[in-house]
Amino acid sequence: MYSLREVNPMLRGIRVSPQWALQRRSEQITALLQQVLSVCLYPELLHDDTLPVDVRQRAQRLLGECDGGSVGSYTDSCGLPHVQRSVAEFITGRDGGVPSYPHNIFISAGSQTALKVMLKLLVRGKGVSQTGVLTPQPCPHTLPMLLEEVGAVLVPYQLSEEQGWALEPGELHRALTASRGHCRPRALYISNPGIPTGHVQSRKSIEWVIQFAAEERLFLLVNEVYQDCVYGEGMEFMSYKRVLFEMGQQYSEMVELASFHSISNGIMGECGLRAGYMELVNVDPAVMVFAKTLLCTDINAPVIGQIALEIMVNPPRPGDPSHSKYTQEILTNRITLAQNAQRAWEFLIGLPGVSCQPVTGGIFIYPRLSLPPEAVEQARSDGLEADVLYSQSLLDKEGVCVGAGCEQREDKYHIRLCVLTPSATLEKVLACLGSFHLHFLDQFSQHA
Amino acid sequence: MYSLREVNPMLRGIRVSPQWALQRRSEQITALLQQVLSVCLYPELLHDDTLPVDVRQRAQRLLGECDGGSVGSYTDSCGLPHVQRSVAEFITGRDGGVPSYPHNIFISAGSQTALKVMLKLLVRGKGVSQTGVLTPQPCPHTLPMLLEEVGAVLVPYQLSEEQGWALEPGELHRALTASRGHCRPRALYISNPGIPTGHVQSRKSIEWVIQFAAEERLFLLVNEVYQDCVYGEGMEFMSYKRVLFEMGQQYSEMVELASFHSISNGIMGECGLRAGYMELVNVDPAVMVFAKTLLCTDINAPVIGQIALEIMVNPPRPGDPSHSKYTQEILTNRITLAQNAQRAWEFLIGLPGVSCQPVTGGIFIYPRLSLPPEAVEQARSDGLEADVLYSQSLLDKEGVCVGAGCEQREDKYHIRLCVLTPSATLEKVLACLGSFHLHFLDQFSQHA
Repeated sequence: MYSLREVNPMLRGIRVSPQWALQRRSEQITALLQQVLSVCLYPELLHDDTLPVDVRQRAQRLLGECDGGSVGSYTDSCGLPHVQRSVAEFITGRDGGVPSYPHNIFISAGSQTALKVMLKLLVRGKGVSQTGVLTPQPCPHTLPMLLEEVGAVLVPYQLSEEQGWALEPGELHRALTASRGHCRPRALYISNPGIPTGHVQSRKSIEWVIQFAAEERLFLLVNEVYQDCVYGEGMEFMSYKRVLFEMGQQYSEMVELASFHSISNGIMGECGLRAGYMELVNVDPAVMVFAKTLLCTDINAPVIGQIALEIMVNPPRPGDPSHSKYTQEILTNRITLAQNAQRAWEFLIGLPGVSCQPVTGGIFIYPRLSLPPEAVEQARSDGLEADVLYSQSLLDKEGVCVGAGCEQREDKYHIRLCVLTPSATLEKVLACLGSFHLHFLDQFSQHA
Repeated sequence: MYSLREVNPMLRGIRVSPQWALQRRSEQITALLQQVLSVCLYPELLHDDTLPVDVRQRAQRLLGECDGGSVGSYTDSCGLPHVQRSVAEFITGRDGGVPSYPHNIFISAGSQTALKVMLKLLVRGKGVSQTGVLTPQPCPHTLPMLLEEVGAVLVPYQLSEEQGWALEPGELHRALTASRGHCRPRALYISNPGIPTGHVQSRKSIEWVIQFAAEERLFLLVNEVYQDCVYGEGMEFMSYKRVLFEMGQQYSEMVELASFHSISNGIMGECGLRAGYMELVNVDPAVMVFAKTLLCTDINAPVIGQIALEIMVNPPRPGDPSHSKYTQEILTNRITLAQNAQRAWEFLIGLPGVSCQPVTGGIFIYPRLSLPPEAVEQARSDGLEADVLYSQSLLDKEGVCVGAGCEQREDKYHIRLCVLTPSATLEKVLACLGSFHLHFLDQFSQHA
């Protein structure tokens, strides 16, 4: 009956992760952000002197950057030039002076939109010449869907759980070699801090990856959205771009790199506003024109999101009336996240059949489950992986949403739990998870 | 030097319209919208009793629909269920009771995002079996870029300028026949009211198109974003869905249809907030799953935009404190738009070498230019169409941005002028355009 009975065959394999519905955000959003955005939407509040003066000045400044003085206007497809400039200044400051230029900054409706643009540009060929993307296992749960949509081949490389989910040189070589004859690897995807592993890469590890990319002529796609969420002792975030520039000209002028960041991160958590940016490094200007063109087909990132992004990269300065409160709120978010990660880790390793690497960054904790053979058997007969069965049961019985493992590896079961929540919520979630877990083990042991 | 020297060859032909930068919006945005959105972003304003009570109630209700009571949360990839319900109720009311169901409503970041999803699903095949999309000439200026991006073949059908840009049955047949042997037409794209022509289709014309689509098994992609902007005397907007359902079962249960609407329309003009919806009719549920999945890769439409959409489709009711003011503001926007269209038409037909069909809907006026042979020659030697030369000169000399003609037809030159602006702005634009036009003609006559 339907003429569109079968969709584009290229898309047949695309699947939504069953845990897509996972919601997350920090509830600790900053008053400054709320106030500036509300003034931008309702400029009559510019005259409301109960609002801090820097809030009103900033809103006025930002409205002045919008066509017709209104957030209802379209912007350039790469975003408001003022926001591009603020992002470039932020990056330059973050990277100890390594320069960033506004024309290399692309504002998008979240990091995934920009990643999709780059993937579309990288994809070509069929069969053995089809673009392959080296992809960590585990990886962000939406990434396989995205690769499928654009027609890229996922080339898996395994992160080392035993080493705290570190990226091992030998494994990248192995994956690359194994892919030959199946596809043509053209890009290497990294998330640092790791999603969902929380692993934070050292400078040495980053240097090694850059060397590898240079040798193999791989385009580096680096998800750095959790750059502000590093809390492991003695650890700090180091951007790929900074390391690249500090490795000398033979790298800094050669390795092609796209770095992604977003307001849906661990400190702002403004997922619903939809904005992020991509910085391109060493990319052919002719290719950048295409990147801009493809962003065009999405028109532009929502202006309210762009403004939130501007606030994220250009926070109040000492002396501004909002500075102290804003700084305190951001610090509180950061501390809560770190405490949550630690608390979840301690709780989880106390459960029977659960092991977990320490988490040093990001917003997820990714424990490993030893499940009874009966549960594995049951899942198999339902056509599921055992961790999918586990997480679906948890959702059904307790209303708690976790992601199932996102690795292509049999008999290693994991769940992904988001710790970016108020501490009280986390406590409730852990209590539910704990009692569910014991019941789950018990249920399958009884069956045996 | 670059490894990504050449982009995906499928994308090589993609071009940004040089007039992409065209900005537009109505400055008459409603106080209700401003207020509700600002309260949603800064919930402390819920206690501000200078705001109307229905504003605060609505904001509270909408926040209650958001996860964690915050617009910073993700939503379902198809949008907030509450917004889907409001859209379905709006459509049912608009279409005289023809039922609309929330599960057929897909909230997206603007109508183009949803259109892209449907195009991706429709595209398949290579060579003679590659998906063709019957596309009006002229058409929305971003459509060719979108078809190129997804890999669909643009099958042009010419609208009849002499008949006020009407869609002629014979021309659709001709276009379809001509396409055979080049591609396989699977969809028919329509905009009603026409973009950029402003033509409003009669019920009879719509019935005819539906019959044609049924006979040829074409998927109907109907852009109805200017449905609220019909001001031609005695004319009214009639949705494709309503006509389809009133044509009887052999059509109403068979013809596949996607209808698009957006807050970036002629009355709200909230382009920067990025939201719209798509209603699918008679589409295979299995295909709808894929539509949802593809929307997923864009995560979700910005929540602030979704809320603005809810207000658009569910305006204040009589008795609500904001009703009278809101209704007046919407009416003012509508009248301004109609007056602007009439004013621009009168002005343009008064210029030498300009003819223009009367405009009966939409936000553009699309006059035809008779340009001196010398200008055509000059453009040719610059590798441009003459109307592109004209509009680029206009932008350079007067700072006025118009679109060049968007037809694939030689020696017929047009410009596209947006009339969705405050009347005073329009007057300034017309004055600049008029003096530029005379100068342009003069300049090329002197050269001769």
